[in-house]
Formats: sequence, C-alpha cells, structure tokens
Amino acid sequence: MSILAVGSVALDGVETPFGSVKEAVGGSAVHFSSAASLFGPVQMVGVVGDDYPMEKLTFLENRGVDLSGVVQRPGKSFRWSGRYTHDLSSPETLETELGVFADFHPQIPPAFQSPEILFLGNIDPRLQLEVLKQVDRPGVVACDTMNYWISGSREPLMELLSHVDILMLNEGEIRQLANEPNLVRAARWARKQGPSRVVVKKGEHGALLFDGDGAQQIFFIPGYPLEEVYDPTGAGDAFAGGFLGALRTSDPLNPQSLRRGMVMGSVTGSLAVEEFSVDRLARADRQELARRAREFRRMTHFELDEIDREEVLHG
Amino acid sequence: MSILAVGSVALDGVETPFGSVKEAVGGSAVHFSSAASLFGPVQMVGVVGDDYPMEKLTFLENRGVDLSGVVQRPGKSFRWSGRYTHDLSSPETLETELGVFADFHPQIPPAFQSPEILFLGNIDPRLQLEVLKQVDRPGVVACDTMNYWISGSREPLMELLSHVDILMLNEGEIRQLANEPNLVRAARWARKQGPSRVVVKKGEHGALLFDGDGAQQIFFIPGYPLEEVYDPTGAGDAFAGGFLGALRTSDPLNPQSLRRGMVMGSVTGSLAVEEFSVDRLARADRQELARRAREFRRMTHFELDEIDREEVLHG
Repeated sequence: MSILAVGSVALDGVETPFGSVKEAVGGSAVHFSSAASLFGPVQMVGVVGDDYPMEKLTFLENRGVDLSGVVQRPGKSFRWSGRYTHDLSSPETLETELGVFADFHPQIPPAFQSPEILFLGNIDPRLQLEVLKQVDRPGVVACDTMNYWISGSREPLMELLSHVDILMLNEGEIRQLANEPNLVRAARWARKQGPSRVVVKKGEHGALLFDGDGAQQIFFIPGYPLEEVYDPTGAGDAFAGGFLGALRTSDPLNPQSLRRGMVMGSVTGSLAVEEFSVDRLARADRQELARRAREFRRMTHFELDEIDREEVLHG
Repeated sequence: MSILAVGSVALDGVETPFGSVKEAVGGSAVHFSSAASLFGPVQMVGVVGDDYPMEKLTFLENRGVDLSGVVQRPGKSFRWSGRYTHDLSSPETLETELGVFADFHPQIPPAFQSPEILFLGNIDPRLQLEVLKQVDRPGVVACDTMNYWISGSREPLMELLSHVDILMLNEGEIRQLANEPNLVRAARWARKQGPSRVVVKKGEHGALLFDGDGAQQIFFIPGYPLEEVYDPTGAGDAFAGGFLGALRTSDPLNPQSLRRGMVMGSVTGSLAVEEFSVDRLARADRQELARRAREFRRMTHFELDEIDREEVLHG
C-alpha cells in the first residue's frame, strides 16, 4: 500500500531553551516521511533549491522513501527559523525565506499517480487541489492546513475540504476554521464540509479523533508525558506520518484502524520532539514504536467491571 | 467507609457567556460533597454565616451528607463572585468577601474523628494541619491547595504535604509548587515531599495520576468532550469528590482503585460543569455515572494485538 506525501522540504533554524540548530532538514513532507517510513514505503513530492543538502535525506531513502518527486531547482531552498520560549507551545517566527518554494507547483511523477493514501501537507490549498487533480482518487485523502490559509484562502480551502477524508488540524486552527470555540461543535461543523473524520491535535495535551456524532464516536489519545522536549517543530507532521503510516491496512477507515492510527501518531509525534529536527525519528525502529504504543496502552487502560457490577457505585 | 470533607461553604456569583447566577451555593466542601455523596456517606465540616440558605443543602442531606459539622456563626457567609470569558479557562475574580470564613478554625465533631478518607479542601494549610491533629490517621489523606498558599504560606504547606497521601492540584499550581515547568519532573519532585500519589488536573484537557516513577506509573484520563460548558466553578472539587468517592473500596490506594477513581473523578467533574452551581450533580444518579464512565472507556479504549503481532509495523 503506497503513501504519497506532498509538502514543504525546508531548512530550519530552531532555538529552544535547550539548544539550537541551524540549516537542519525540516518541512512538512520531511517530518511526515520520517514517521510514515517507519511503517512502509513513502513517495515524496516537493521542491528544493540547488543548495539543499540532499545527503541528509539518505536515511529516508534507506527506509524506502522514494525522493524522485523532490525536484531540485536553481535558487535557494525554503528556509524557516523560529524560537521557542520555555513553555514550548508555539514558536516566534524569526525569519521565513521562501526561495524556490515561492513558485512551487507540485508535479506528481507518473509512478506516484495511484497512491492508496495521500497526505497533503500544509501548503497553499490551491496547490493541494492541483495535487488531487493529478492522481487517481486515493482510498484515503488526508490534509493539514494552517491559520494563514484559513483566513486568507478560505474559498480554495473549502473546495479542498469537499474532497478530503481526514482533516488534521490543531486546536486553534479548527476553532478558527469553524469560527466556534467549542471543539465538539467545531469538529461537527468541519465534518459537514467534507472530511468524514477530523483529527484535532492538541500538542502535549494529546489528540482527538472525531469519527461520527456523539461521545462514542470520539477517540482520545493523550500526549506522552515526556521529561524532555527539545524541539516541537514538525511534531504535527510526525503525528500525521505515524497516523497514516498505521492506516496501511486492508481497511484503513475502519474505526479500529483509525484508533490504532491515533496511537501510532502519538507515538511518532512524541518521539519526534525528543531531539532536534528529524534526528530522533531517523534512528527510531519498529520495536521502539511497539514499545511506546504499549506504554500508551498502560497509561490509558482501565477496567470498568466493578463499576458495571456496581461495587463502586453501591459501596 | 466514611469520608470527611473540610473546606469552604460559600455563596457564589458566577457570570459566563451562557448566563449568570447570584448567591448560588458553592465552596470546595459543597462541590466535593455533591460528587462524593453519589458514592456513599460524607461528613462535612465548614462554617457559614447566619444568612446562609441551609435549605439549599437539603439535597446533600438526602444523599447521606452529615452537615452537623457545618457551624453557623453570626455574620455574613463567605461570598465569591467571578466572571468567565469565552474560553472558560480561568475566571476573573470580581469580589471576595470572607465574612465568618475569615476566623474559621475547623472543629471536627467527635463522631467525625475517625474517617477512612479525609479530603482537605483548598483552605489555609495551617487550618488543614489543624484538621489532621483532630482526627485518627485516616487510611487516605488527600489535599488541594492554590497559588495563594503556595507563594504565601509555603512553610505550613510543606509541613502539610509530609502528612498527605494524595496531592490534587491543577497544572499551573504544581508547576509553581515545584518551580518546574515540566509536569513529569514537577510531579516527581512533589512525590518526594510526602504525597506518594499526585493528581494533576488539566481542566478540559483531562487529568494525570502519578503513582510512581516511569511512564507505566502514569495514568491519564481525558476531559469529557462537552458541547456545552456552563460553569467551570468547582469542577476541581467535583473531580476530587468523584475520585475519593470511588476509592471507597477495601484497598483504596491499589493502582486499579486509583485508576477507577480517576475515571469517576472525570465523570463527576464533567457533569458538574454542565450547569451552574451544584445543579447538575444534585440531580445526577449512579446509573448516569456508570453510563458516562462507560463512555470514557469507549473514548480511550484501543487494542494493540495487531501491533504486537507486528501486522501494522510490518505492513
């Protein structure tokens, strides 16, 4: 089962209270593929300048990521730099230099045009729509977006949503998209715009899957309680990579598949932030993913037998 | 198994975007008992002025709350009023009038002096210590506190903690207490000060139980995804009431008992905020608690069999 990921391929400068990196590989397609490739092959589409250190993506190729859709153009690569303060919640952007990304129009190579799962990383919704036009309708289309497109490109974004199966946003973004502070109501509104499933990422507070109406259609996975968070950059894309990577089953939109996806998304997202850039996911392996998934299970598992037998309630 | 609750008994004025109430019954002991009494008898200790509408606590007496420890003194009752803005996270305090609460020194009636479980609601830690001196050492001592005491009464608070089994705080409070932004490290520090268990309440984001070191000693329960939150006042005390109420078993500090406590705390906390004051818990019943507990289970349950069989990871 093939996964196609389209998004940014960037060089990031990140400062946190715990250190800093410069010119580190980043961008939504890179973070996504670092996670998704732990589950199986990924096809990646993006653009870089002639200054991009492609050798730093060798670990992805070694894990089965086909980089033939990453086009190298004359000019500078997309660069972003930001600074996180102590709470590590959201970064202050120090500099954005679009470079060759400014004229990016994704070209899907013929070999990539029949993906089973498509991840549309956070880029201009017009470009996300261009991608959709170039591929046979995948079994699963998932997309991310951000406040910039929600406020500035609402029309193409709404058109995009009508073609999407799974919308993945953070808390603030879905509230803004739906113009509704309550997450349950915001997710219900979003589900009426096209995506039958909505994933709301809450950072350290975990993530919610809305898979229908009513509380029994909601699945919740907590954030992994980390003692050290070095670099939150790309955590949302790493979550998406683990989530969609784990959907590589015969029945990806089945409720149990989606729950497993949420668990594996939390696993890869929590690993991603433990080191700068993609360093942590680059050296992760499947045994480690399985181990952390079991920790998530221990952390959330409880039995209600005694409540059902009313021992607790008739104590 | 008897539960003794000591705390404030107040009249609250609350404004939210959804409405307002004036002179509504509130205070930590009242919110706690509204929840804990759904599980069994509670003994309540507090003070009110001669203006307190005691008839509004009749629903508690009908549910087995012994109010004989609530002393009525000449003067005005403790009044608090606050206003919540749209995000309902923390209120702006509009007015605090201590009244007879200013001279409160808890007197534990002889019939209340051998509780199995003791809840020390958020009052001056010196008063919490006075309570401890008046009772036989209970099997479980749990306490709450707040930023005011953490910064202003640190010495008696630390003395109190050395006698406590379960510390229940919100996120901001434990960070302030431990002077440590990371929750895992903050909880570890707190556990070294006395309480072998630490419960961190995160409001709509759920709650964490730290029951030892390492990720397997952490239990997480999400917030219940409510469409309407009318009044968050007292939610933390309602959580504590459900939590300690559900510990009314033969082995309250057993890990499974504590997990059930966390679930039932989330159940009562989530019910509490659905209406103003104690209105929602006043009309709750045990069937409803069991139903919501089962919804929490559906919302968090997942199987890892396929991950363990490595189907997902070798897809």
